[in-house]
Amino acid sequence: MGIVVQKYGGSSVADATSVKRVAQRIVATKKAGHDVVVVVSAMGDTTDELIDLANEISPLPPARELDMLLTAGERISMAVLAMAIGNLGQEARSFTGSQAGVITDSEHGRAKIIDVTPGRIEKALQEGAVAIVAGFQGVSQTTKDITTLGRGGSDTTAVALAAALHADVCEIYTDVDGIFTADPRIVSNARQIPRISYEETLEMAANGAKILHLRCVEYARRNAMPIHVRSSFSDKTGTWVVSSEAARTVGTKPARDAGPGSNSEETSMEQAIISGVAHDRSEAKITVVGVPDKVGEAASILRALGDAQINIDMIVQNVSAATTALTDISFTLPRADGQTAMTALARLKDSVGFERLQYDDSVGKVSIVGAGMRSSPGITATFFESLAAAGVNIEMISTSEIRISVVVAESQVDAAVNAAHAAFDLGTDEVQAVVYGGTGR
Amino acid sequence: MGIVVQKYGGSSVADATSVKRVAQRIVATKKAGHDVVVVVSAMGDTTDELIDLANEISPLPPARELDMLLTAGERISMAVLAMAIGNLGQEARSFTGSQAGVITDSEHGRAKIIDVTPGRIEKALQEGAVAIVAGFQGVSQTTKDITTLGRGGSDTTAVALAAALHADVCEIYTDVDGIFTADPRIVSNARQIPRISYEETLEMAANGAKILHLRCVEYARRNAMPIHVRSSFSDKTGTWVVSSEAARTVGTKPARDAGPGSNSEETSMEQAIISGVAHDRSEAKITVVGVPDKVGEAASILRALGDAQINIDMIVQNVSAATTALTDISFTLPRADGQTAMTALARLKDSVGFERLQYDDSVGKVSIVGAGMRSSPGITATFFESLAAAGVNIEMISTSEIRISVVVAESQVDAAVNAAHAAFDLGTDEVQAVVYGGTGR
Repeated sequence: MGIVVQKYGGSSVADATSVKRVAQRIVATKKAGHDVVVVVSAMGDTTDELIDLANEISPLPPARELDMLLTAGERISMAVLAMAIGNLGQEARSFTGSQAGVITDSEHGRAKIIDVTPGRIEKALQEGAVAIVAGFQGVSQTTKDITTLGRGGSDTTAVALAAALHADVCEIYTDVDGIFTADPRIVSNARQIPRISYEETLEMAANGAKILHLRCVEYARRNAMPIHVRSSFSDKTGTWVVSSEAARTVGTKPARDAGPGSNSEETSMEQAIISGVAHDRSEAKITVVGVPDKVGEAASILRALGDAQINIDMIVQNVSAATTALTDISFTLPRADGQTAMTALARLKDSVGFERLQYDDSVGKVSIVGAGMRSSPGITATFFESLAAAGVNIEMISTSEIRISVVVAESQVDAAVNAAHAAFDLGTDEVQAVVYGGTGR
Repeated sequence: MGIVVQKYGGSSVADATSVKRVAQRIVATKKAGHDVVVVVSAMGDTTDELIDLANEISPLPPARELDMLLTAGERISMAVLAMAIGNLGQEARSFTGSQAGVITDSEHGRAKIIDVTPGRIEKALQEGAVAIVAGFQGVSQTTKDITTLGRGGSDTTAVALAAALHADVCEIYTDVDGIFTADPRIVSNARQIPRISYEETLEMAANGAKILHLRCVEYARRNAMPIHVRSSFSDKTGTWVVSSEAARTVGTKPARDAGPGSNSEETSMEQAIISGVAHDRSEAKITVVGVPDKVGEAASILRALGDAQINIDMIVQNVSAATTALTDISFTLPRADGQTAMTALARLKDSVGFERLQYDDSVGKVSIVGAGMRSSPGITATFFESLAAAGVNIEMISTSEIRISVVVAESQVDAAVNAAHAAFDLGTDEVQAVVYGGTGR
């Protein structure tokens, strides 16, 4: 039997009761014959409480010290989880990111993993212990200071360790059953996706789906590490995130173990055209109106935004009207960056010579994602027809090879998600029975 | 200017306000031209809260994991203290015990420091930063696991670092002004001791005085590191704990810096005969009645207690009555060990053949401590006369070269302490004015 890496988020270890429940799951996995490595986040709201404490002390805490402070959170959760496992008669040893060999660069608060040398973890496994590793943290290769990985850090720790240990699977435990065809709070018949490719998951995550972070999926894709997203509250099979080849094969365990409820038939078939509908309400739209249609004007605008450290998402430039030689440039960006962007752009008004700026933070983005659209013409038409039938006006459009995104009024996001979900039959029982029957969910 | 090591306990960094106050003191010391290393305990009740959490999870948490858990406490306090110092414009870097080079054995929960290799601390000081070090913790030389030092651990960390860094002084900050001639809650005119030898401090600590722990004083004595015990709530000079030679010299700074309020005259004089009166209410007395007065019987009793891991303190054997050839053996021990000891002794009843066991936990120990008693006859007489005059009955007596201890009824402890304190003129204004005038307290 191989190595299983399990990652539990803060809500899965929020209190002593949850910790004990997680411990039982871990011991069960160990008893099933696996070597188990567990990556754990800080308990419940610990990280937020530590940030509050830091803010009580300093308006702008030094990044090195903030990392030192925040890493106390995982130190607590991993130690109590090891205790709870020990209580069940199974030895468990906790390790900080540094002890587990998670080597990073020196960018405090958003460090990148540059190497994983899990010698102590391997030794613990060889000696029959469960290894508990603090997520979200590492140690700088050059300064030897403690670093944190930033958003999605614990998921990334888990995948990186799984890759370094050549684990069979990286299980990411969460409070939902897996990745869904759409947000079940918006689409009542949204369906759990049994298997999805890294590429589709990246597009879903980049366009508003909240389960996995981009970094973690990207790391898994580069290392071909299967991720199993599943609920820490049930034993149901969740969603497997795998290579596009493996995603096209249903009914099989993508790795040596798919957990309870999976079967062993292997059936190759065509992939569903659309895997899911993602939405995002965190963006705003800025339009620069009346830009002279000359070489280099758009570049000046984008340079100013880049210099202000703003990541823009979609960008659209109107075809200029022949009579005026003026054009409009619209783009979307995180709402949190709205003020910074408007300030940076206002400074350019005279040099670029545009007419005015428009700011709209009542927008939302709706995306359909599916590897099958590569080989299926007419997807865009179906999507847009469904939006029109639902009375949804499209403000901007952006596409990739496996994704089509539209910006709509924020008030129309729910209608747009439901329309697209229905148009591609993502929620019908029939599709579910044919394509996904027999996986025992 | 040299290196100053400052240690702040949990009550000195209990909340954000206290942390900021301590930060100002540290920055003031740095601005006065010193290199500053700060050893800090966990904030307020953090350690107790973490122990409560562990007990919620497990009735007997594995010692390795308990150490991992508890060390989160200092991680938090040291990071926020570094932030608070940074806020005042002074760079500060926090270091775990492991990062600071505190190398210990592998006895989790009560590890002993076996080496200190403070290379990273020295580098931080050279680069102009204040170094903040987590007290109470280290890293095992053999297993590389995180360890804690047990009771008095932060004080010991501070002294050990001060010795390894060849600091001028180790300042131990507390919530009182220093070491007193007796507990001021019992003796209203108890006086702060300006200077006291390591040996006397060891006797005071071993016999109930609560300010410094034995290990820390012993470490300082072995390394001739001056300790300055002082209040974190004032700038007053506190109590210097120094070599017996230095303790006999008054009016001088024992090290290069004695802080504000000290003067620079050097006056050699005879030491006060008695330095202070200590008391201890944490012990119980067990009497083994009617032990056959044969070779090896006392040894059997002590072996049984030793095997049960019980440290006994005073021990007295009556001269046996010629007619019966039976004797009584009495000893004192921590009350917490009372039940274990009684159980261990009861098992010996038949083999040793004693008559019965008596247990008394309504006792207290009162000790007078002073290096001067070596050369002053009559001290014991003065002490005992004062007790008799106060109506205090002596139950047991024990002496060392610089200490006389008596066990009395617990209800008579206050009276005994006051009687001894007055008998040796420890609290009079006259003595204070002559010997300690001009130190500006």
